[in-house]
Amino acid sequence: MQRCEALAQHSELPGGLTRVFLSPQSRAANELVLGWMREAGMSARLDAIGNACGRYEGERPGLPCLLLGSHLDTVRNAGKYDGMLGVVTAIECVHALNTENKRLPFAVEVIGFGDEEGVRFGTTLLGSRGVAGTFDAKVLAIPGFVEALRDFGLDPARIAEAAKKRNEVLAYAELHIEQGPVLEAEGLPVGVVTAINGFSRLRCVLHGEAGHAGTVPMRLRRDALAGAAECALAVERIGRSDPELVATVGRIEALPGAINVIPGEVAFTVDVRAPRDELREGAVQSILAAFEKIRGDRKLGIKVENLQSQGVAACAPWLMAQMENAVAAEGVRVMRLPSGAGHDGQAMQAIAGIGMLFVRCKAGISHNPAEAITEADAACGARVLERFIRDFAPAC
Amino acid sequence: MQRCEALAQHSELPGGLTRVFLSPQSRAANELVLGWMREAGMSARLDAIGNACGRYEGERPGLPCLLLGSHLDTVRNAGKYDGMLGVVTAIECVHALNTENKRLPFAVEVIGFGDEEGVRFGTTLLGSRGVAGTFDAKVLAIPGFVEALRDFGLDPARIAEAAKKRNEVLAYAELHIEQGPVLEAEGLPVGVVTAINGFSRLRCVLHGEAGHAGTVPMRLRRDALAGAAECALAVERIGRSDPELVATVGRIEALPGAINVIPGEVAFTVDVRAPRDELREGAVQSILAAFEKIRGDRKLGIKVENLQSQGVAACAPWLMAQMENAVAAEGVRVMRLPSGAGHDGQAMQAIAGIGMLFVRCKAGISHNPAEAITEADAACGARVLERFIRDFAPAC
Repeated sequence: MQRCEALAQHSELPGGLTRVFLSPQSRAANELVLGWMREAGMSARLDAIGNACGRYEGERPGLPCLLLGSHLDTVRNAGKYDGMLGVVTAIECVHALNTENKRLPFAVEVIGFGDEEGVRFGTTLLGSRGVAGTFDAKVLAIPGFVEALRDFGLDPARIAEAAKKRNEVLAYAELHIEQGPVLEAEGLPVGVVTAINGFSRLRCVLHGEAGHAGTVPMRLRRDALAGAAECALAVERIGRSDPELVATVGRIEALPGAINVIPGEVAFTVDVRAPRDELREGAVQSILAAFEKIRGDRKLGIKVENLQSQGVAACAPWLMAQMENAVAAEGVRVMRLPSGAGHDGQAMQAIAGIGMLFVRCKAGISHNPAEAITEADAACGARVLERFIRDFAPAC
Repeated sequence: MQRCEALAQHSELPGGLTRVFLSPQSRAANELVLGWMREAGMSARLDAIGNACGRYEGERPGLPCLLLGSHLDTVRNAGKYDGMLGVVTAIECVHALNTENKRLPFAVEVIGFGDEEGVRFGTTLLGSRGVAGTFDAKVLAIPGFVEALRDFGLDPARIAEAAKKRNEVLAYAELHIEQGPVLEAEGLPVGVVTAINGFSRLRCVLHGEAGHAGTVPMRLRRDALAGAAECALAVERIGRSDPELVATVGRIEALPGAINVIPGEVAFTVDVRAPRDELREGAVQSILAAFEKIRGDRKLGIKVENLQSQGVAACAPWLMAQMENAVAAEGVRVMRLPSGAGHDGQAMQAIAGIGMLFVRCKAGISHNPAEAITEADAACGARVLERFIRDFAPAC
C-alpha cells in the first residue's frame, strides 16, 4: 500500500494522479520500481520500449521465466491501484522468495509496462505489445511518438529488442484490481479471471420524421426517439440474456432536440462485451435483428456502423486451475469471473498462456481518484500470488 | 395566394421568411394589409400595440362586431401561410360583402395581430393580449421592448387603448392552416377546431450510477439511460391511450455520454397536450406514476420539474355549430379536430367566444419554408368562412 502511495506521488498534476507513457513522471516511477526490484534480489533494467523489467533467476541461470506484471501508466485523474498494485505485489512476492534465498525450477520476471491505457498516443498496450513482439510499426507515425521515445533515451530502431521469445516465457500472470463490483457483491477478496472480454462497438442512427409536438397525432408519428428508446431496452434485454454478457447504450443524441418538437433523428452507441466471441457475436446479431424489427414496426430508417471489435483473450485453463488452487489454499471460496476491461494479457497471449487474479475494489469504481482497496484484500492477493508462484508448474 | 406571396416578400432575411414583432418588415406588412383592408371597404388603422385593424360597418354604424383575425408575425425561417392566410382570407370575405354592398346586422372587423409567435421578446400573443385587455405590464420590463414600441411610433403608456370591451365583440373567429397532418390523412380541405389544447411541460432528471461498460454486470447496474428509455416509452404509451392526447419526449441528454460508460444521469423533457384539461392532467399523473414505478424498479433517483402549463381554450359550441353548418353547406364532410399548436384565440377567449377553421396543409409541415397549401383548399376555406360570416348569428 505504501508503494502504491509512493508511485502516486509521480503525477503530471498535483491534485490527482496522471502519469502517461514516456513522460518525466513515468521515468521517475520506473526508477522507483527498478530500485524496488533490485532490493528484492532481481537484476533490473529498462527495456527497449520503456518497460521496467526485473529478473530473479531460478535454480540455475537462464531458465525460462514465469512472467508477472502489470502497467505503471495511468488514465487522467486516475486511482492509485489500477496497474500499480500488480507490479508492486509481484515484486513483494519475489522479495519473499529472495529473503529465504529460495530458488525455483524457473526464473521469475516482473514487468511494469510503460503503456497499457493508451492515453498519450491513443493506442493501447504499447508496452506489452513490445514484449510480445507485436508492436505495430504504424505507431511510429503517430505525431510525437518517436520524439518522446528519443527524449526517454530510447531508440525507435531498436524497439524489436524488447520482444521475448515463446520459449523464454512459461506463462504470463497478472494481479489487478477488479474495476467492477462483482467480488464486492460476492463478499470475496480475490477472484480468478476466465477471459479478457472481447467487445463490439456500434454507432446507430434512427431516422423518423420531425414534427410539431402539439399538432401531430400519436398514430401519425414516426418518432425516432421512441424508436431509440425501444432499441436501448432491447440492448439491455439482450445484455441480460446471459450472465456473461454486458451490453450498454452509453451515448444518445436526439435532433432537433426541442421540447416541443418530435425527434426526427436519434444517434446512439452500443457496446457489447463477452468472454466468448460466439456469445458476443450472437448478441450483436440479436441486437441488430431487434433494431430491424423496431425500425420496421415504426417505419423508421436506420444506419448501423461497426466502429470497432476485438476478440476474447481467454485465460489458459491450466493457469486458472493453478490460481484456483492457490485461492482455495488461502481459505477463500473460488470465484471465476471475466474481465470486462482490457489488460496487458491481450497482448501477452501472443507469446504465452495468460492468467489473471482480480483483487476486490470498493464499489467497482476505477479510473477515478475514488478507486479504493483494503490492506487486507491487498495482503490476500499477495498471499495467493506468492503461493501461485511457489507452486507454479509449467504446462506439459 | 398572391397576397400571401406579397407578404412573404417582407422578410428580415432574403433567403427565407422571418418577420418579427415591431420590426421594419412588420411595418411594411402592416401597410400592405391596411391598404388591402381599405380596398375591401373597411376603415383601417394601426392600434396601440401595433396590430393592423380594419372595420366594416354593419346595417348601422357602431354595432358590435364579429371579429376575424390571425397574425402577421412569423417564426424564424417560416412558411408563408401560418397566420397570414387567416388575415388575407378574412379581408377577401369582407371584400366580397363590400362588392355587393352587403351590410350585416353586425359589424365585421379584421385584425392582423403583430405578435403571436413570441419570437422577438420570448413571450407569445402580445398582439391579441393587447386587444383582449390582458396585456401583462411585466412585458414592459423585457429588454428592448419599450424602445421597439417607441421606434414603431407607439406609446407604451397607451397600450391599454388597444383593448376591446366584451360588449363590442360578438365572437372571435380565425381561419388558420392546420399545422398538422390530420385533415390530409382524412382527405378533407377544412375542419372545425374543438379547442386549442392545453399543455404541460416537464423536465425530468434520472439519477443512476455511472460505471465501466465492460466491468459492471447487468444485474448490478443502475443505468439511467435504460430507465429513461422506459420512461420515454411510457410517455408514448400514455399519449396513445386517448386519440385526443399527445405526449412527446423531445430532448434527451445522457451523462457522462461516453461509448464505454454506463450513463449515470439522464435529463429529458415531456410535453403533454390535450383538448380537455382533465385528460391532460390525468395523463400527467399517469406519466408521473409510471416514472415512479420505473424509478423504484430500477433503484434510480428522479427529479421532476414542472416547467410550464396552460389550460385548454375551448371553442364555443354555438360557434362550432355555425362553422359546421358552413362546412356542410359547402359540401364538405364535417370533421372536428383539436388544435395542438397555440393560437390568438387563447388570448381572445377573455372577451369573446372563440371559433377556428383549419385549412389542410401539406404533410402537416409548418414553421418551415416547406409549409404548403393548395389554391383549391384556400378557396374552400374562404368560401366556408364567407358563408359563416353571412349566416353568423350572435349567441342568445
